[in-house]
Amino acid sequence: MSFRAVKGTRDFYPEDMRVLNWIIDGWRRVSLRNGFEEYDSPIFEYLDLFTAKSGDEIAGQLFSFTDRGGRQLAIRPETTPSLARMVNAKISSLPRPIKWFSISRLCRAENPQKGRLREFFQWNVDVIGEDSELADAECIFAVADFLREVGLTPDEVKICIGSRPLTIAALRAAGVPAEATDAALAVLDKRPKVTPEDFDRLARGIGMTDRQIAAVRRFQDCRSTAEVGEVLAGAGPEVRGQIDTLGRMLESLSAMGVADYCCVDMRIVRGLAYYTGIVYEVFDSAGDLRALAGGGRYDNLLEVLGGPRIGATGMGMGDAVLRILLEQRGKLPSTLRSGQLEFFVVADGTGMQQQVISVVGALRAKGLSADFSYKQQALGKQLKEANRRGAKRAVIVREAGVAVKDLKTGQQQDRATDEFLARPL
Amino acid sequence: MSFRAVKGTRDFYPEDMRVLNWIIDGWRRVSLRNGFEEYDSPIFEYLDLFTAKSGDEIAGQLFSFTDRGGRQLAIRPETTPSLARMVNAKISSLPRPIKWFSISRLCRAENPQKGRLREFFQWNVDVIGEDSELADAECIFAVADFLREVGLTPDEVKICIGSRPLTIAALRAAGVPAEATDAALAVLDKRPKVTPEDFDRLARGIGMTDRQIAAVRRFQDCRSTAEVGEVLAGAGPEVRGQIDTLGRMLESLSAMGVADYCCVDMRIVRGLAYYTGIVYEVFDSAGDLRALAGGGRYDNLLEVLGGPRIGATGMGMGDAVLRILLEQRGKLPSTLRSGQLEFFVVADGTGMQQQVISVVGALRAKGLSADFSYKQQALGKQLKEANRRGAKRAVIVREAGVAVKDLKTGQQQDRATDEFLARPL
Repeated sequence: MSFRAVKGTRDFYPEDMRVLNWIIDGWRRVSLRNGFEEYDSPIFEYLDLFTAKSGDEIAGQLFSFTDRGGRQLAIRPETTPSLARMVNAKISSLPRPIKWFSISRLCRAENPQKGRLREFFQWNVDVIGEDSELADAECIFAVADFLREVGLTPDEVKICIGSRPLTIAALRAAGVPAEATDAALAVLDKRPKVTPEDFDRLARGIGMTDRQIAAVRRFQDCRSTAEVGEVLAGAGPEVRGQIDTLGRMLESLSAMGVADYCCVDMRIVRGLAYYTGIVYEVFDSAGDLRALAGGGRYDNLLEVLGGPRIGATGMGMGDAVLRILLEQRGKLPSTLRSGQLEFFVVADGTGMQQQVISVVGALRAKGLSADFSYKQQALGKQLKEANRRGAKRAVIVREAGVAVKDLKTGQQQDRATDEFLARPL
Repeated sequence: MSFRAVKGTRDFYPEDMRVLNWIIDGWRRVSLRNGFEEYDSPIFEYLDLFTAKSGDEIAGQLFSFTDRGGRQLAIRPETTPSLARMVNAKISSLPRPIKWFSISRLCRAENPQKGRLREFFQWNVDVIGEDSELADAECIFAVADFLREVGLTPDEVKICIGSRPLTIAALRAAGVPAEATDAALAVLDKRPKVTPEDFDRLARGIGMTDRQIAAVRRFQDCRSTAEVGEVLAGAGPEVRGQIDTLGRMLESLSAMGVADYCCVDMRIVRGLAYYTGIVYEVFDSAGDLRALAGGGRYDNLLEVLGGPRIGATGMGMGDAVLRILLEQRGKLPSTLRSGQLEFFVVADGTGMQQQVISVVGALRAKGLSADFSYKQQALGKQLKEANRRGAKRAVIVREAGVAVKDLKTGQQQDRATDEFLARPL
C-alpha cells in the first residue's frame, strides 16, 4: 500500500512550513499595525452561502458534500461570504468602521496550475461600514505596507488601480447598451490575458462594434485620472465625482508614503460580478505571474446575504503566487533554511544523561529553546547533531560545571552549573 | 434570506480570535523551545488514508466527498495519518529522531457536545524514529511545559500515565484469553466513564469471569510502578522490562522538573487500537471535563501506512476543552479583552486629515501600530474612539507639531512632528 497527497494540495515539511509561517507572520504583523482585527470563520459552511453570493456556476469550483442530516455543505472557496454572514449576524452591536482581517485556508476544485492550487492560504483585509475612499486607501496601503515589509520594491511590484463605475461610464459613453454591461465587463477583464485579435473577437462576439471597441480601448489605456477625465470629458457630475474620489484616494496613498507602489490602470476590472467601486490588482513587474492580490469595493454584498445595504471594501492575497515571486527575487531570509535552537545540551562523558536532561528542563522552563541527543554517544557526534539542528550554542555538561560553546565563533567558556542556569544568555 | 454557521462549528469574532491566537501562540512557543519543528498537511486527503489507519468504522466520523475526477476524499479528522504519510515519503532522507509538531484544523462528523465540536484545532507533537522512553518523556514534558506556560498548576491538572503492554500483561495474568484482548481493552477504556455496575456488566458481556474482573480492577487501581510490580509479580522479564521503562521515563520527567504534573494511573488505556506502549491522558482535577489531551506510543502505524517498522510516539491536545478550563480557572489574560493599538492619531481642528494620514503612514512604516478616524469629527469624539480601540497613546495633530497623550495616565507632551516621528516611543 502506498499513499500520497491529493494533486493540487501541499505537504508543508518543516523547511516549507518556516516559509509559510514567515509569510503568515508578516500578514498578521502588517494587519495589526494597520489597525485591523483578526477573525476567522469555519472551514465549511452551508453550500447556499457561496451560491447566493456568486451564483450556481461557483458550485463547480467548490468541494461540496452532504452531512448525515442531509445538509448540503461546502469547504470555503473564499472568505468574503463568511465575513458578510458574521458581520450581518452582529450588525447592530459592532462599532463601525469594522476593520477586520483573516488568514484563511481555502479550497477550490480547480485544475492545478502554476500559482493556482486546490488548497491555499489567503490574507484578507476588509473595511465594512465606511463609504469614504479612505477605507479603500487603507486596504491598498496594507498591501503596500506588506510588500515593503517583505522587501518587494516599487520596481518589482505594482498595485494597478481601476474603477468599476468609470469603466461602466466608458461603456455607456461608447454606446454599449446597459443590458450588455456584465458581458462587456467580462470581456474587458480578459483583455490583459489574450491577444489583441482575440480581444476584438470576444468583444465582437457580444455585439460590440469596432468603434465601441476602439473607444473602450482608449479608456482602458488611461494611466492617470487626468487622462480618464479627458476621455470621459462629456460625462455628467456623477462620473466626475467618481474621478474625484479616485484622485482623493491616490492623494491619501501619497500622504501615507506609498504612492510609488500605486498606478492608475483602467484595464483592471476584476472578474467577480459584485464589485461596485474602486478595484485593483497587484502584479509583478516582470509580468509572468498571475496577480499577487486583488480587491475592491463591494457595497451590495452584505445586503445580498440578508443584511443592510452598507459600504464595504476589501482585498485578498494568496500565498502561492507570492511565494513564487519571493523565491524568484531572493527575498526569503536565509535564516528560514534551518531550524533555530538557542541551546543544544551535550554530555562530556557517559552516565550523565540525567544531568543533561535536567539542564534542558531548566532552560525550557525559562522559556529558552533547548534540546539534546536521545542517544548516549561520543561528544563529537553530539556536537555534530547540535550543528545540524541549527543550535547557536552547545552546553557541555561535565562532572563539575558546564562549558558553553558558541557554535558560530567556536568560543568556549567554563561556568558553574547554577550560575549558568541563573543567567543562561 | 438568512444565513448561519453550521452547528458544531465556530465563528471567531475578534475577541474569540484573540483567545484562539493566544492558545496557538503558546502551543507554538512551547513546541519550538522543546526542539520540535512545525509541519502541516493538507486539510483533505484520500479517504483511504484514514480508513487504512482506523478501519472503515471511522468513515462515519468523516466528512467525505468525491471530486470531479471521481476520487474519494475526506477532510482530515486527525493529523497522525498525514504525518505518517509525510514521514514515509521521505523516510530515507530525514535525520532521526524526527521531532515534529503541528497545529491543525480538524473536522469530525460528530454530534456536537460540550467540548466536542465538528471543527476544532489540535496541537500535535510527535517523535518518530526513537525507541527510547526519552521520546515519550519529551512529549509528556511538552504538555507539562505548556500547562505551566498558561498558568495551570499541578493542583488543577494531571497527566495520568498508563501502559498498553502492562495492561495486556494484566489481562493475561488474570486469565483473559489473547483473542479477547481488543474487546477487553475497549471495556477497560470505558471504566472511568461508567458506573461500577455498568463496568461489570460490560466486562461480563465479553466473557470475563468475576475473578478476572476483580484481578483487572486491582491492576487498574495501581498508582505507582511499585504497585504494578506487586500485582504483576509473577510475570516474566519482558513485563519487568516494561515496568522499568515506565520507571525510567518517570525519572526523566522528574529530572526535567515536571514530576508534580505526572501520576501513574493504570486506568488509562486510550480508545484507539494502534497504541503499543506508554499511554496518557490529561484531566482537570475537578474532573468534570473531557480529557484535555492524550497520547502514547504507536510503533506500528508507519508500517501500516506503507513505511518501515519504526518507533513513534506522540500527543494531541484540542482547543475546545482547554479553552473551557482556562475560562473556568480565570487563566485568560485580561489584555485579550480588547484590541491593542500603540497609537491613535487625531486631528485638533478641521482640514488636517492629510497630516493625520501622513503621521499614521509614517508610524506604520516604522512597524508601529497606528490608526485614525475616517470621519472628520470633534477632538473629543476622536479621543473616545481611541479609547474604544484600546490605544495606548493618542497623537493629537495640530497646526504646528503634535501632542502625545498617554491614554492610561492622561499625561500629555508637546513635540515637534519630525522629532516625534524620529523617536515615537
